[in-house]
Amino acid sequence: MQVTRASDYAVRVMIHLASLPEGERQSLPQLAAATDAPESFLAKILQALSRAGLILARRGKIGGFELLPIGRQASMRDVIEAMEGPLVLNVCLLSGDPCERKHQCPSHRVWVKAQEALLNVLGTSMISELAAERTPQTVNIDLKKDEA
Amino acid sequence: MQVTRASDYAVRVMIHLASLPEGERQSLPQLAAATDAPESFLAKILQALSRAGLILARRGKIGGFELLPIGRQASMRDVIEAMEGPLVLNVCLLSGDPCERKHQCPSHRVWVKAQEALLNVLGTSMISELAAERTPQTVNIDLKKDEA
Repeated sequence: MQVTRASDYAVRVMIHLASLPEGERQSLPQLAAATDAPESFLAKILQALSRAGLILARRGKIGGFELLPIGRQASMRDVIEAMEGPLVLNVCLLSGDPCERKHQCPSHRVWVKAQEALLNVLGTSMISELAAERTPQTVNIDLKKDEA
Repeated sequence: MQVTRASDYAVRVMIHLASLPEGERQSLPQLAAATDAPESFLAKILQALSRAGLILARRGKIGGFELLPIGRQASMRDVIEAMEGPLVLNVCLLSGDPCERKHQCPSHRVWVKAQEALLNVLGTSMISELAAERTPQTVNIDLKKDEA
């Protein structure tokens, strides 16, 4: 019951992008350095975030990755779901596949409650607010690392 | 970020065993029928629950599986952890592998909070209380199914 490495890196890179001045782009090597993520893996993650409409990938000389307005309003839940699909703690909670045992199964309501508790935290933790928590010093360290 | 099928079945079988009169044993086919679990898969789950000290497996003519006192006091968290090991939502929360980024990473505290919210629900949902919620009618349906 663990998020994937992809989701972990996706959250990191989204927070990093949200901590940059609006409209600023960064290259894949810069983002990999800032998030401590392997470049080739991060490339796939950025593709998925781009497909989900959270970031924009621009090619060319002034290319790079930047946050889209919808990405700036995203929660941690949104980012994780962009990577893994809908967050469901147990198959019995899948909306398209309602569990036949649900009315006689006392654990069903616990799964529902655990899921609500989890989504409540992840759905109210906004990427932009987390980015704002980073001290300018931390962002500067990242930027220096990017330049190196 | 989903529990394994094994954990789901483990919770089901523990609740079923806890709803039986104390000391009553049931066979693998009876338990498989009561939990809608495939017998061969359930056999492995019962082995793991037995290794974790939650149930007792007795061989022989009056053999079968029964709940041990420690199993009767188990929470859903205990049962899931008996199957999957310690519940950690993200690798950065592993106690033996503290994340180097933790002091500069704003998402770390969200992972901590999400994990606490999840464990709070699963750790306070006791198998015996869930078993007591089952109506006698439900248990009877299971028992009839077991006899069939």
